[in-house]
Amino acid sequence: MTTDIDSAPATDIPERLLLGSGPSPVPPRVLAALAQPTIGHMDPAFADIMAETIALLREAFQTENRATLPISGTGSAGMEALVANFVDSGDRVVCGVNGLFGERMAEELRRAGADVVPVEAQWGRAVPIEQLLEAAVGGRTDAIVVVHGETSTGVAQPLEGLGDWCREHDALLLLDCVTSLGGHALRLDEAAVDAAFSGTQKCLNCPPGLAPFTAGERALEKLGRREQPGRSWYFDLSLVLDYWNPGASGGRAYHHTAPINMIYALREALRIAVGGDWLPTTWERHRRAHHALRDALAVFGCERLAPDGEQLHPLLAVTPPAGVDEAAVRSALLDDHGIEISGGLGPLAGKLWRVGVMGAGARREPQEQLVTALATLLDAEPDEPLAALAEGWRA
Amino acid sequence: MTTDIDSAPATDIPERLLLGSGPSPVPPRVLAALAQPTIGHMDPAFADIMAETIALLREAFQTENRATLPISGTGSAGMEALVANFVDSGDRVVCGVNGLFGERMAEELRRAGADVVPVEAQWGRAVPIEQLLEAAVGGRTDAIVVVHGETSTGVAQPLEGLGDWCREHDALLLLDCVTSLGGHALRLDEAAVDAAFSGTQKCLNCPPGLAPFTAGERALEKLGRREQPGRSWYFDLSLVLDYWNPGASGGRAYHHTAPINMIYALREALRIAVGGDWLPTTWERHRRAHHALRDALAVFGCERLAPDGEQLHPLLAVTPPAGVDEAAVRSALLDDHGIEISGGLGPLAGKLWRVGVMGAGARREPQEQLVTALATLLDAEPDEPLAALAEGWRA
Repeated sequence: MTTDIDSAPATDIPERLLLGSGPSPVPPRVLAALAQPTIGHMDPAFADIMAETIALLREAFQTENRATLPISGTGSAGMEALVANFVDSGDRVVCGVNGLFGERMAEELRRAGADVVPVEAQWGRAVPIEQLLEAAVGGRTDAIVVVHGETSTGVAQPLEGLGDWCREHDALLLLDCVTSLGGHALRLDEAAVDAAFSGTQKCLNCPPGLAPFTAGERALEKLGRREQPGRSWYFDLSLVLDYWNPGASGGRAYHHTAPINMIYALREALRIAVGGDWLPTTWERHRRAHHALRDALAVFGCERLAPDGEQLHPLLAVTPPAGVDEAAVRSALLDDHGIEISGGLGPLAGKLWRVGVMGAGARREPQEQLVTALATLLDAEPDEPLAALAEGWRA
Repeated sequence: MTTDIDSAPATDIPERLLLGSGPSPVPPRVLAALAQPTIGHMDPAFADIMAETIALLREAFQTENRATLPISGTGSAGMEALVANFVDSGDRVVCGVNGLFGERMAEELRRAGADVVPVEAQWGRAVPIEQLLEAAVGGRTDAIVVVHGETSTGVAQPLEGLGDWCREHDALLLLDCVTSLGGHALRLDEAAVDAAFSGTQKCLNCPPGLAPFTAGERALEKLGRREQPGRSWYFDLSLVLDYWNPGASGGRAYHHTAPINMIYALREALRIAVGGDWLPTTWERHRRAHHALRDALAVFGCERLAPDGEQLHPLLAVTPPAGVDEAAVRSALLDDHGIEISGGLGPLAGKLWRVGVMGAGARREPQEQLVTALATLLDAEPDEPLAALAEGWRA
């Protein structure tokens, strides 16, 4: 009657270079942190790990919000937590919709009973600020919600003016920054963002499973004014905060059991993303990597969907070369070269390649692997795209 | 401009023997699986891993439910998913409350707008079946919810008769089996349970972060009758199922990004818990380990809270020896011996030690470590309790 617990684990996991829309490449150092021995979630040693994780997350978000922590779920759980805590039934919410994740946010808001005012833009373009503000002044608006990095199209949403408007009109500015956090310039406090969520599996190079989350005092005040508890117990920040971030009382109150090992991994990933490099350097590396790869893929005839000035550096969405069976090339990249890139979603299915430029993937060497493999599959010479890539990295 | 991604990870995690209320000891084999390279969540290789995980989960739950999968959150997320999918606002729900997790379930149900009929029992006792049924016939009842393994008290809840009653009265039987799954006899289909959730960090010896979940056809039919989508998008099983468990169409529909590495670990943990050993053998080992440790701790003067016949094998809750500063002993166990056990919760704070007897912790060797360390701290001879332990393992 023994349990076979000391034998070797599964080794049927194929080697992949993850250059799709996420997850992104997880460095061995982060995987090694993930596999450190599990300890108790009320162990004093774990409290220290939580504290360091919170401090690093604040740096990543460029915020001083005390309410900063990883939600115990994937990026989408972060979206649900954002809405569950800061949108009340009946709230009028202006929501930018220019891709799949804007649509999803609008759906989440509707489920929460909000009066959603969608402000749409073509997939591949940013939502004009003036249209968002126009919609906001069309009624008593409680919140403006936008997707900073639209993963379905590779578009970065400008935020200028939204935060100020919200502060002047007693509304909250809420943000999805899943694909931008750590890879695209974003300073939450400067932008006067009231609450935001992200995911771990994009620019932070951590496996999926946690949702970095932050909320400022204006958002917490709104939550505190609730007369009855929200629908969600799991995501109720007024409970989660006592667990993650106890106040003056000092004692941590048990809420749920934190995903211990995932938090080891997130801490390690954050040490890389915002610890060693300081953040603007990381952003600059992503910017450079984006443009280098864009130039290289242009040699194959790929055109970026997002116009200049609206591109999201961590996600390069391009049209496949004319006449190419895009799905077949993606399959062959995966099967023959072990490289993952993503296709288009929704109206752009079959019309787009989405290439991740995230963290460890935003480096010259993995991009060379991709360009070389693509040249083989497209029956093209690799020299010219590789030269364009090299030139981009020199620039 | 390099990222320091190849250096060694954090090694500030202390060595612990986890014999508290969870997390339980994670075998090196499971940690090694956790650290396998991350791959894409739409990678065909990952679909195979999902399929094996589902098959093993069905075996663990002893169910043939097609809707069986790990929810992407901790055990508490499983509770939220259970209520979000199968309890509608206005439903009359009979809920057994005999400990912290019954109280929590009642709170979750109230937040969902249910008319909750709590059936209370003393902490440390099971809820009498006849009282649950009496409450159920007191009105048009939509569901009965009980906690199979009450982690706060170490009580196992009998289920006999509840499933049949629910089938005869068009109600659902819903179950929390966080601390019992894989460690205490439980056959969901035989017990006619309609839906249940668990956690990974108890008898399965996987790190926390996923909630094993299963639902039968009667529960899914109720979900299918909803005229408008539920409040929760993240936990909406009608969407999650298309991702985890596609029907005849064959294609998996993207919902959220699954926590890839955690699923590697869960699969590996399930291979140990229900793969190598067949399940009744695992249950028998937990039963034996429970009684052996109970006998050993009795030598120190510890009395089990649960009476014979109501004990939960994976969680042994005992009174500390008279006159002992229980918190000081627990601290010294952790600090001097690296062994975690848990204290009491709520009305039992300061009055209870809760010792995990879970998976790899339900073996003689870690129990010997605990008994030896306790003898040192209690200034007692270890021979007699160790003999009692040995005798229990021989029985």
